[in-house]
Amino acid sequence: MRLNDTTDVAMRIMIYAASNGARRFTIDQIVAAYALPRSTVMKVVNALTQGKFLVAQRGRAGGLHLAQQAAAIKVGDVVRHMETDFSLVACMRPSSDCAISQFCKLKSPLTEARAAFLAVLDEYSIADIMLDPVLFGIRTPAA
Amino acid sequence: MRLNDTTDVAMRIMIYAASNGARRFTIDQIVAAYALPRSTVMKVVNALTQGKFLVAQRGRAGGLHLAQQAAAIKVGDVVRHMETDFSLVACMRPSSDCAISQFCKLKSPLTEARAAFLAVLDEYSIADIMLDPVLFGIRTPAA
Repeated sequence: MRLNDTTDVAMRIMIYAASNGARRFTIDQIVAAYALPRSTVMKVVNALTQGKFLVAQRGRAGGLHLAQQAAAIKVGDVVRHMETDFSLVACMRPSSDCAISQFCKLKSPLTEARAAFLAVLDEYSIADIMLDPVLFGIRTPAA
Repeated sequence: MRLNDTTDVAMRIMIYAASNGARRFTIDQIVAAYALPRSTVMKVVNALTQGKFLVAQRGRAGGLHLAQQAAAIKVGDVVRHMETDFSLVACMRPSSDCAISQFCKLKSPLTEARAAFLAVLDEYSIADIMLDPVLFGIRTPAA
């Protein structure tokens, strides 16, 4: 059981964004912080701005920042937005090739289990998982 | 978020096994019931016998059958046995390439969410998801 790699990257970006506080940041700073491919970061930042988790401000004082307070953004909502395929097994997909799809009784326990999974993530906000900016070199440690 | 394809196949085989009741069945019957590749079915049956979910009886009266009553086998245990990688994101794997792995606070919510997922599946047994043998052509409908 895995989350998509793009969900993983999205969480890293949200952690970075929250750790920046009110400070604007750029795609290049994320690329540098995590040593991730620029194209991946661009794609995921785009998904996060579309999902209204990040705001991309244009212009000279522009840059990226969280769309809301970190404490108001649920981890579960970010995961829901990024995981485009939540079909745990074939019978949960419209194009199922399984011979018993229409009768299968496994869908209901799996749907319930998936809901329990997301319910736990809804209890956590991005503020709960943000890190000390010092770890990213965003702020230097106090002397 | 997906389960492995082999977990999906394992669930189909367990459903088939339970629907057979005390009747022995063969790999070829599973292949025919689901139109799955023989090599896949063999691999997964092997994993299920190793996990003591199925018993493979040799000899003339041989064949496969459930290792226990269907009601005694938890869906969660089959999923746990089949999902060899439960590392939802990179930082949950030993070979993580994420720059913040050692500090990351996302591991704990994800671990908790995964536990909630499996806890729901532990509430269901294979008996809960078995099907009417008629659907598999194992038994003909009563006249």
